[in-house]
Parts: sequence; C-alpha cells; structure tokens
Amino acid sequence: MSQKRDNKNKMIGKQSIEFGDPIYIQCSASIVGKKEGQGPLGELFDKISMDDMFGGNSWEEAESALQKETVQLCLQKANVQIEDIRYMFAGDLLGQSIASSFGLAEYNTPLFGLYGACSTSALSITLGAITIAAGAADKVMCVTSSHFASAEKEFRFPLEYGNQRPLSASWTVIGSGAFLLSDTKSGRDRGVITAVTPGKIVDFGLKDSMNMGMCMVPAAADVIWNHLQDFDRAPEYYDRIVTGDLGHVGKQGVIDLLSQKGIDISKQHMDCGIEIFDQATQDTHAGGSGCGCAASVLSAYLLKQLETHKWKRILFVPTGALLSKVSFNEGKPVPGIAHAVVIEAVR
Amino acid sequence: MSQKRDNKNKMIGKQSIEFGDPIYIQCSASIVGKKEGQGPLGELFDKISMDDMFGGNSWEEAESALQKETVQLCLQKANVQIEDIRYMFAGDLLGQSIASSFGLAEYNTPLFGLYGACSTSALSITLGAITIAAGAADKVMCVTSSHFASAEKEFRFPLEYGNQRPLSASWTVIGSGAFLLSDTKSGRDRGVITAVTPGKIVDFGLKDSMNMGMCMVPAAADVIWNHLQDFDRAPEYYDRIVTGDLGHVGKQGVIDLLSQKGIDISKQHMDCGIEIFDQATQDTHAGGSGCGCAASVLSAYLLKQLETHKWKRILFVPTGALLSKVSFNEGKPVPGIAHAVVIEAVR
Repeated sequence: MSQKRDNKNKMIGKQSIEFGDPIYIQCSASIVGKKEGQGPLGELFDKISMDDMFGGNSWEEAESALQKETVQLCLQKANVQIEDIRYMFAGDLLGQSIASSFGLAEYNTPLFGLYGACSTSALSITLGAITIAAGAADKVMCVTSSHFASAEKEFRFPLEYGNQRPLSASWTVIGSGAFLLSDTKSGRDRGVITAVTPGKIVDFGLKDSMNMGMCMVPAAADVIWNHLQDFDRAPEYYDRIVTGDLGHVGKQGVIDLLSQKGIDISKQHMDCGIEIFDQATQDTHAGGSGCGCAASVLSAYLLKQLETHKWKRILFVPTGALLSKVSFNEGKPVPGIAHAVVIEAVR
Repeated sequence: MSQKRDNKNKMIGKQSIEFGDPIYIQCSASIVGKKEGQGPLGELFDKISMDDMFGGNSWEEAESALQKETVQLCLQKANVQIEDIRYMFAGDLLGQSIASSFGLAEYNTPLFGLYGACSTSALSITLGAITIAAGAADKVMCVTSSHFASAEKEFRFPLEYGNQRPLSASWTVIGSGAFLLSDTKSGRDRGVITAVTPGKIVDFGLKDSMNMGMCMVPAAADVIWNHLQDFDRAPEYYDRIVTGDLGHVGKQGVIDLLSQKGIDISKQHMDCGIEIFDQATQDTHAGGSGCGCAASVLSAYLLKQLETHKWKRILFVPTGALLSKVSFNEGKPVPGIAHAVVIEAVR
C-alpha cells in the first residue's frame, strides 16, 4: 500500500500539532445506561440500555459488553467491516484497563491500550489522529467507556455499602462512545479533526476524590491556555470550548482560573458532565464524569451540532483525575490531566 | 516550525508500519534494583540502587521515584534539557498507572498515558515513533517501570503475607528504562527504529496468574508471525527476536507455537526475562517480568549489541499479560498482548 497523505503536519508552538490534511470522523456511536437516557440528551444517544448489567455477570463484564457493543454499532452505522479497521485506541477507568481488554479482545484488531482517566477519550482520538496523520493507518477505531457501578467499586465504595456522597461528587456516567477516524472523505463524515494539543499533568495538591471537578480544573485551564497561545487564538475562534467532566463545581473554577490569565471563556464554555444530567431532577450532584461521559456526549450531541453546521468548530477538552484507590488511601493528591482536540464541521 | 520529514511512512501488510525516515534512539538510560544488579547483566545497567524504596515512603512512591530518576538520567546522558522533549509516552503496571502519574508530573511535559501490561515499553516506543514519523514531534521520551513489591501488592499478595510461589511464576523486575527518540541524527545514537507491528489481544483462556509466561505466548507468537508475514521476512533476517518476559516456561511455548506454523525462531529467540536473572543462583523461578524488564534490558544490553555493531538488527517484542486482581478474582482468563519493534544499528 502506498502512502496517500502529503503530510504537512506541523508542530505548533510549545505543545500543539496541526494536521496537514484533516482527519475525518467518518462515523461514531454512543450507548448509555438508563439514567443517562432519562437526562436532557436522552433522545440523542444511539441506544439506551434498560439493563445496566448489559447481559454480564459483574459490573466489569457489563462495562466490557457496553464497550464492545458500541464499537459494533459504530461499524454497523458506518457500514464498515472490522477487518477494515487497522488499529484500535481504547481505554477505561478500571485497574489495568480491564473493560477494554476483555471487551475488545474478540475483535482481533491490533490495540493500543491507553490510560488518562476521564481524559482518555481525547487521548484515544489524539493518538488515532496522529497515527492516521503519519500515514500509518487509514482507518482506526477510538473507544472509551465508563460505568457508574464499576467505577464506584474501583475508586470509592461498593454500592452495597450505601455511602452518602457530598454534593461536590460527580456521578460516573454509564456510557461509551466509539469514533471511526479515517484518512479519506466519505461524504457522510460527522466532523474533521484539524489539530490537537496534548496536555500535561497539573497538580495543585487537592486531595478530595469527592470533588474531582476542582482537581481537574488546573489541568483543563493549562491545556486551554496553551492551546490558545500556541495557535494565537482567542476563545471566540470556537463556537464552544467543551470540557469533559468538570461539573457544576469545576465549571466556575476553569472560567476563574483562565480569567486570571486574561482569558474569558465564559461565553464559549460548556461541560459534558453538566449537559448529560439534569442536576435539579436527577440527583447527580456535581454532574456526570467518566471516560464514557465526554465520549458519549461528543458522539450524541457535539458532533450533531457540527454535522448540522449549527457550529463551525469546537475545542473538545476531556479532563482526567489521576488517582487510584491505593494512591488515595496513601494520602496522595489527585493531579489532573486534559487533552484538547480541535473538531470542525466538514466543509 | 516547519515539517522536516518527507514522510514516506508505509502501511505494510495487515498490521505493520514502515517508517520513511528512521527514528533515532538518541539516548537511553536504565536503573534497576539490587537483585537485578546482582544478575548476569548487572554491570551493564547505568545505575543499581541499593535502596529498593528509592527514598520513598511506599512501594508506589519508590516506583515513581525510580521512573523519574531514569528520565532524569537519560536527559543528562543525552545532554538534552527537559524543555526540548515535546511529549512523554509512559506507563507502568499499577492500577490507574500511578507510578507514571506521580513520577512524571513534575516534568511539566505533555504526557500520553499508556497501558499494555509488560508490553508497555513497546507501546510507548511505538507511539513515540509514530508521533515523530508524523512530523508531530521532534524529540519524545518513552519510559516505563516496574517494581517487584508494588506489583506483588497490586496483583497477588502483600509481601508480608509471605506466600509461596510456584516455579512457573515470574519475578517482577525492579527497573525502569527511558528512551529519547529523535527525528534527527545526533551522531551518537544507540539505534534506529525502522518499523513496528502493533499487536492484538490473544486469549487462549489460560487463567493462571502464576504462569504468565504461558499466558503471553499466544500473543507473542501472533505478532511475530504477523510481522514476518507482513514484511515477507524469515527469522534469519534478525540477529535476535527478543521477547519481553516469557521466561523459561514461555520460551519453549513461543518456539513451539511458531514451529507449528512452519517458522523456526529457536536460533534467534532471546527473552529479556531469562537474561536479567540467573535462574540457578537467584531463585527467580521462571524469570524476570514487568514493564521495567524489557525496557531496562533493551537499554542496557540489546542496544549495546547494536551500538557496537555486534548485531545488525533485532525484533523487540515485549509481551503483556492482561489481568487485574479484580478480573483474576472474578475467574477471568489472562489474555496476552505483544507489540513488535524493529531496531537496527545506525549505519
């Protein structure tokens, strides 16, 4: 096979990449749980499962089944065979990323395993896009997932314990989003990726795993600031600057932190964790979170706005809180990380 | 910054990538623990720590300190400033990759977090190389680590429990290897990366976490076979085909499995887990394992053979066993994954 791309990819500023040719989001799919289906975006998801076990025998099996099914649905919607997917880029929140390992094994596709906490959807899309930009793949699948029950067990308490959660706590989304990236225009593409700004770990020393929104704020502010600096852009360049899951508590934090640096994103800012649930009626505290939150909202809602040309371009900034139950129990802080992806409407 | 590379990267066969321009391993560093230092490769490592805590207060802090120090040493050896490293690609074996998160935060460098169990060294080098090949970075740092005590705690039993281990069990290496990849020839490069074959998850249904060598054999055989098919090469093309940590039990397995497919790698095969310890005197059972095993052996021993032109080229195939203590306790099998990297002597 010969290389088609002319590869005028560019390193921009300190930490950004501009792709010479656009990377096409040929198709995407989202599947969520019952509660997410009852939220404000409910009717936009491709599928709402009434069974939070997804036919599995454990919460981990449930999440694997969810991830597997979302990939399958994306392939079906795109009318693409799994054999045409050169590589997969996948991850989840569980220890040793077992939701992906056990969910994707049967696809028999070379796999890049990733971990960036709730920022992993951006991580997978970024690395998938870079691989296509290198001419090293023609089609890749980027998929992430999260599950409320497997995440509570992994990071906090078993559900059976019935612990109370403070209002600053976020609610892990049962959801998965899969994205088929391609080097070729299909005519039905949902959007194009034109640039990325991979982010740094930023640690302000916050230790409250029940307020992960604030833990992730410094990293989100850092990558948004660096992105705007690298490209010499103002927030107005984007229709929306969409963080992953800062929630109601973190939203004001990222706006404040950037305003201290002279940047006002208050008009453009949107947060997937805020959009996915109705705080007033769903008792979801600070809002949704998890690898599946930003991924499912991107597929169901954000790409829809680009597809219908309601928006021209967005900066998609999933945010991750870097902790494990071991690090938390050892009294370590919860550093954040966030990666930014520029997604534009197809012209 | 303008793009220097002419990007004639090629997709080869079903799952391989050939880089248009070589990716230079400009420098590397390895740091290991006391036991590894007493092994057959002892004098080749850059540093042997007499303190397995690496100045930390927990095994996790120890591993973070080890990873951080190995990156620092690599930068020093290369005489490169951290500001010149565009991105880091890192991972470890712990839940939510906390050794990397807490070890690398202070470097303030955009980070791609990866998880591929003990194959993560190949995962990091592969994605680092692809990113350079895309013209998306000029210099990247790829680093992985493992620690006997943090791994035993994460996957098996706390050391204090003093459980007995069967002879098929592998011994997690206390070690870290860091690799500085560059798009530019420095004149002192240790080797060049010319191609990669990212691998698939292969699950033969084996469930014994005390025999991870055999669990990883199918994935190792699969990626080696696909690599040779994709490039239409015979094993003799390589001076060595080096698996990560199949150990004494897995070595025969991978040779047998490939011989059933008509490929004899018995003359070229070498395993990092076998090389790093002396089975007869060190009581390390099946051999070394862990993210730091293949990484430290690549830096200390394999690259040395290429540097001195004793070997022309190797196929470096770190192998990973995909399990968590949750999946193991839920009775799930231990699927394997392996990624192959072609590393050649600089001409």
